[in-house]
Amino acid sequence: MALQPNHSSLPPTIEWRDDTLYLLDQTRLPQVCVVEAADSVEAVWRAIHELRVRGAPAIGVAAAYGLCVAMQRDQPAARDAFLTRLEQHAAYLDSARPTAVNLRWALERMLAHARGDAAQTGAALYEALVDEAKRIHREDIELCARIGEAGRALIEPGSGVLTHCNAGALATTGIGTATAPLYCAHRDGAAFRVYADETRPLLQGARLTAYELQQAGLDVTLITDSMAPALMSQGLIDLVIVGTDRVAANGDVANKIGTLGVAIAAKHFGIPFYVACPSSTLDLRTPSGADIVIEERGAEEVAQLAGRRVAPEGMKVRNPAFDVTPHALVTGIVTELGIVRAPFDTNLAALFKTGAPA
Amino acid sequence: MALQPNHSSLPPTIEWRDDTLYLLDQTRLPQVCVVEAADSVEAVWRAIHELRVRGAPAIGVAAAYGLCVAMQRDQPAARDAFLTRLEQHAAYLDSARPTAVNLRWALERMLAHARGDAAQTGAALYEALVDEAKRIHREDIELCARIGEAGRALIEPGSGVLTHCNAGALATTGIGTATAPLYCAHRDGAAFRVYADETRPLLQGARLTAYELQQAGLDVTLITDSMAPALMSQGLIDLVIVGTDRVAANGDVANKIGTLGVAIAAKHFGIPFYVACPSSTLDLRTPSGADIVIEERGAEEVAQLAGRRVAPEGMKVRNPAFDVTPHALVTGIVTELGIVRAPFDTNLAALFKTGAPA
Repeated sequence: MALQPNHSSLPPTIEWRDDTLYLLDQTRLPQVCVVEAADSVEAVWRAIHELRVRGAPAIGVAAAYGLCVAMQRDQPAARDAFLTRLEQHAAYLDSARPTAVNLRWALERMLAHARGDAAQTGAALYEALVDEAKRIHREDIELCARIGEAGRALIEPGSGVLTHCNAGALATTGIGTATAPLYCAHRDGAAFRVYADETRPLLQGARLTAYELQQAGLDVTLITDSMAPALMSQGLIDLVIVGTDRVAANGDVANKIGTLGVAIAAKHFGIPFYVACPSSTLDLRTPSGADIVIEERGAEEVAQLAGRRVAPEGMKVRNPAFDVTPHALVTGIVTELGIVRAPFDTNLAALFKTGAPA
Repeated sequence: MALQPNHSSLPPTIEWRDDTLYLLDQTRLPQVCVVEAADSVEAVWRAIHELRVRGAPAIGVAAAYGLCVAMQRDQPAARDAFLTRLEQHAAYLDSARPTAVNLRWALERMLAHARGDAAQTGAALYEALVDEAKRIHREDIELCARIGEAGRALIEPGSGVLTHCNAGALATTGIGTATAPLYCAHRDGAAFRVYADETRPLLQGARLTAYELQQAGLDVTLITDSMAPALMSQGLIDLVIVGTDRVAANGDVANKIGTLGVAIAAKHFGIPFYVACPSSTLDLRTPSGADIVIEERGAEEVAQLAGRRVAPEGMKVRNPAFDVTPHALVTGIVTELGIVRAPFDTNLAALFKTGAPA
C-alpha cells in the first residue's frame, strides 16, 4: 500500500484474515518479530492490557476486532441476547486500559452499529460487526495518511524533530500519527533529522519508534528521555511532535509519561510543540486534563529494566503511565481535518461543528 | 563515624589500608557489593574511567591515592626524576574523565605538595604524598558534613525532595553532597519524602541513590527521569537538590545528563533548585558553562539496558554524559562555606575572597 512506510520486514500491526485476528507482539520488538492469533476475547484483553498491541488508534482497531472474536464464539441467535452479550464483552474489553479514549470510542461505535439495524440477528449481526471493524481499520489507515499531509509542512528541510514514545506506524494500522508527517516528508525527499526519546519505563521509543523509522530509512538518533533538553539547548531540535491518548475539550493532552517534561523544555527554548492524533482522540466530554484518569502501573516496570532488576529489593516506586500537558504548552494539534491552534476550547468544538480548523 | 549515614551493610567507598587502595565497585551495586584492591595506576585509571568509583569528590580522593599507588611501584630516588614521573602519572590519571574538576584539583594539589618541600626525595616524598592523600580524604568527609549542616534548613518537615543521579555518600567518602542535607535532616528526626530519578543511562539514581537512602532508613521513592515533571505538577515536590561535577564562574552548573530538564521543570513550577558541592567544585577559571567540555560516552550505554540490547542493531545514538544548567535556573549553591545565591558571578568570587557567602 502506497501510504505505508517502507518497512517490508515488519508484518502489519493488526490483521484480520480468514475470520482470525492476528496481532504483532510489540513487547518483543526489535529483537523478535512474532505475530500471534488472538483467538479469544480474553486473549485480546490481555494483548491490550500487556501492551502487546498499543497506541491509541491500534488499540481501537484491535478492540473492534476483539468484539468480533468474542461474538464468533458466543453468538446467541436472538437479537436481544446477542446485544446483551456484546455489551458485556465491550465492557470487559473497555477495562483493559483506562486512559485510551480510542478504546471506548471503537467499542461504542461497534455497539451503535449493532444496535442500528433492528432486523439483524445472530450470524448477520456478527457479519455486520466484522464489516464495521474492517471499516474502522480502513479509516485508521486513511486518517494516518491525512494527518501526515496536514502536518507535512511543519517539517523544515534540515531541521531536527523530536518525538517521544511511539505514535508511529506500530501504534496504528497506517503510517502513524506523530510519525505521519515525518513519513510524508521523507517520501517527498526532504532531508531532516529525527530524535527518538527512548521512553522509559517501557522503552517504546527505543524499541519501536527508532526501529520503524530506521527500517523506513529515516535519519533517526536514539536518546534517553533525559537528553532532550540538552539537545534543545544546543539548537539541534526545531520541532516536537508527539501523539496522544486523549485530548480534553480545553486542549489539555494526556500522553505517555515524560511528554510534560518535553513540552515544558520546548516552551523554555521556544520550540514549537505539536500533538498529532485522529479527531476521535479529541474527547470533548472530558472538560480538562484534571478529569483524565491516569493509569498507575506496576512497580516492576521501573524497578526492572529489560527483565533485570536494577533497583534495590523492597524499593518504593511510582509508575504513572501518562502525564497531562496543559494546553498552554501546546502549539497545535494536527488532525486529519487540519491543524487546530489556540484557543483550543473554542477551536476544538468548532472543528466538530464545521469539520475544519477555525 | 557519627557523620556517616547509617548504612552498615555498605563498605566505605574508598579505603587506604596497609598501603593498599580499596575501591567499592559501584557498577555492580545494588545486586553485588564487591571491594577490590586497585594495585596499579592503570587499575585506578580504569576504575575512574569505567565509573566503578564515581562522583566528583570520590574521584578526587581516588585520584590522590592513585598517585600514591603509582609512586609506590615506580619510585626514583632522585627528586627531579620522582617529580617527573609523578607529573606523568598525574597527566595519565587526569585523562580518565574529562568533566570532573575535582580530578584535576586533587592531582594538582598532590603535585603542589610534592613540589613544596625541596629537601624531600624518594621514600620521604612518597610518604608525604600518602599523608596529603589522607588529608584530602579526611577533608572530604568533613566537607560533606559541613555541606549537610549548611543545607539542613532547606528541608521543610513533610516536604518532598527530588534528586537526580547520585551525589550521595557513594559519590564521596562522607555523607554525600546533595544527600548531605537529607542525611542531616533525617538524623534530626525530620519526616520528609525523597524522590530519586533513576538517571539513565547508567542508573546511578536507581542503583545507588535509592539504595543508600533506603539503607539509611529514609523515605525514598524511585521514579524514571521522565516522571519528575508530572510529580511536580501534582505538588509532590517542594525542593530539588542535585550535585555537580563543575560550577563555572558565572554559576552555570555541569551535572549528570538530565539535570537541565529537572531545572527547567522546577523553574516552570516555581520549585527551588539547589546544587550542593564542596567549594573545590567551583571552577572560577571556567568563565561559563559554554567553556565546559562535555564527555560523550559510548553508544552501547543507551542502546543497551543492564547489559541487554533494547535498541535496533546499527541505531545511531547520542550519549552526552553531562548537561549544563544555566545559572538563571539555579536558586542556590550549597557549599561547606554556606549557600551562595545570585548574582553568582560576584558572589562565587566573593566566597573565595571572604570564605563566606555574600
